[in-house]
Amino acid sequence: MSELKNDRLLRALLRQPVDRTPIWMMRQAGRYLPEYRETRKQAGSFLDLCKNAELACEVTLQPLRRYPMDAAILFSDILTVPDALGLGLYFEEGEGPRFRKTVRSESDLAGLNAISADDDLAYVMNAVRTIRRELRGQVPLIGFSGSPWTLATYMVEGGSSRDFLHIKTMAYDRPELMHQLLSLLADAVADYLAAQVRAGAQALQIFDTWGGSLSAAGYREFSLKYMQRVLARLPAEADGRQVPVIVFTKGGGQWLNAIADCGAQAVGLDWTTDIATAREQVGARVALQGNMDPTMLYASPERIREEVATILAGYGHGSGHVFNLGHGITPGVNPDHVTAFVDAVQELSPQYHQA
Amino acid sequence: MSELKNDRLLRALLRQPVDRTPIWMMRQAGRYLPEYRETRKQAGSFLDLCKNAELACEVTLQPLRRYPMDAAILFSDILTVPDALGLGLYFEEGEGPRFRKTVRSESDLAGLNAISADDDLAYVMNAVRTIRRELRGQVPLIGFSGSPWTLATYMVEGGSSRDFLHIKTMAYDRPELMHQLLSLLADAVADYLAAQVRAGAQALQIFDTWGGSLSAAGYREFSLKYMQRVLARLPAEADGRQVPVIVFTKGGGQWLNAIADCGAQAVGLDWTTDIATAREQVGARVALQGNMDPTMLYASPERIREEVATILAGYGHGSGHVFNLGHGITPGVNPDHVTAFVDAVQELSPQYHQA
Repeated sequence: MSELKNDRLLRALLRQPVDRTPIWMMRQAGRYLPEYRETRKQAGSFLDLCKNAELACEVTLQPLRRYPMDAAILFSDILTVPDALGLGLYFEEGEGPRFRKTVRSESDLAGLNAISADDDLAYVMNAVRTIRRELRGQVPLIGFSGSPWTLATYMVEGGSSRDFLHIKTMAYDRPELMHQLLSLLADAVADYLAAQVRAGAQALQIFDTWGGSLSAAGYREFSLKYMQRVLARLPAEADGRQVPVIVFTKGGGQWLNAIADCGAQAVGLDWTTDIATAREQVGARVALQGNMDPTMLYASPERIREEVATILAGYGHGSGHVFNLGHGITPGVNPDHVTAFVDAVQELSPQYHQA
Repeated sequence: MSELKNDRLLRALLRQPVDRTPIWMMRQAGRYLPEYRETRKQAGSFLDLCKNAELACEVTLQPLRRYPMDAAILFSDILTVPDALGLGLYFEEGEGPRFRKTVRSESDLAGLNAISADDDLAYVMNAVRTIRRELRGQVPLIGFSGSPWTLATYMVEGGSSRDFLHIKTMAYDRPELMHQLLSLLADAVADYLAAQVRAGAQALQIFDTWGGSLSAAGYREFSLKYMQRVLARLPAEADGRQVPVIVFTKGGGQWLNAIADCGAQAVGLDWTTDIATAREQVGARVALQGNMDPTMLYASPERIREEVATILAGYGHGSGHVFNLGHGITPGVNPDHVTAFVDAVQELSPQYHQA
């Protein structure tokens, strides 16, 4: 493997000194880029794109050709694990992801495939290896998975949901069944992430997109606990270097104190959390990632720069901050506004890292 | 006017001693009740129902006939004010509310009607007077309005939104225009709520349904500030009795400290906030309302009772708690589960109010 030329991301995630605040964007390989839309058309469906290692590598690298990002993130879907478990993932145009089967009973649970990520998600590991090779050590590669709770919401509801009626009724009325499903998912996610590390991922992010739909107690019982279980099973290092993990619970700002103790090296913040307050709360326990409102990218380049300055000043001096959006970039963003965003972080952040 | 026989709600909102924790439910007059669906059918459209004082009164009273609620809440829509301003509110089956016109420029703003709530929203005041008369002092009547920010989201987007792209772009790039619209709305909302009090409302709630979509700084600048402006203009009392105001920002749990200082007597909590932590934070500044997850009503009566016990214990001893859901009740709930919910609050709460 090529030696890593830019390790700002890894250093910041471990709160080690850096020359400037590293930056990447959730969903940076995405529909706002015309070259992505072109490759996607070539591939056929979204899933075809995920399953083709060469094309998944191509779209992963596209944002790096335009912007001096400090990390690449594996191009894949968060629902690959439930798909491998046998639920039959598909996408309908203009709709979110859907599953052909759902998990709502003991027999549904018993009917899930026993899987090994290396074998049953080999296409993801191929993509990781291909991207890692093509990156040639330019920046680190982030692997990822959905959190057990987030995967379970799709598996129980059968797709996206607004109210999470089915899964919450299961969690409230049949907690033992809910815990069985979440345990199974925690083990599958840990295996999946460990396999990504073996294939070349140098940092990991767990996307807990729907943890924020729970009550405070429900979050600890059904989401955080299973992310802790995943974290406890991950390899500490690869190629002699620590593999930091970022936990991102959208809507989790109220629970930061608990999240900071879950065993991850870094916590992702959505845009509703004040990053200065967050840093006070977590202290030296974890690094923080985030957290510009993704809709700020629709504002003028001047306004974007102002917001970057505010967030940098909010975090303040010293390492431990990875700049990002507070959620994924949306398809309507003008790619030139991303230039303004990345430039602002590059130009305005060094002052916070002087000795 | 009849003398008020049950003033638990008003007393709890002012943190005065009560014999048990009062309860009402957001959207308690709603589609989960077969009698509501029947009246709605009679009325024609949802808006026809809002505009017919007798039928609006009928659906307001329906939940009180089934359950010993401690308050009635005016049956109306949160978008009556923008409708009166001239935007043309309508509903499409299965969709959220829509407006025929939007407000995205100075000229759109200049084109809004100058309104007086007594004249231009007379149908709401008729409904308030009718309900107040028919209640015969049984329980207090809560009036309400959307917050200026929440009303503005619908007016700028033209309906419901997921990303709030148009209004956020306005807020970020054209803050002076955004502030003009919000000032206009704050004045209209204050006039609207004051008129409801004159017509007979005995407590008020401001629904800030979309304040939680903002960043922490954005929330203070674009939502909280204008609720403060509304609160500063409301009549302190009616019939010689204080008219308490509840501010409910969905997703506002991270900002409780600021919200507790906005001038309202009570703060509504959604279900993601731990009520024990919230009480510690707000201290004696405000009463708290909430906050059971509405989806808990899909669980068994035993589980519902357990959750009520947990929330009561979380708030702890003494007055200052109004029991409610953390958001509106949803259409699929079995009305018998509401019985279990209300009974649990009635039976389990007196122990927290003994001297």
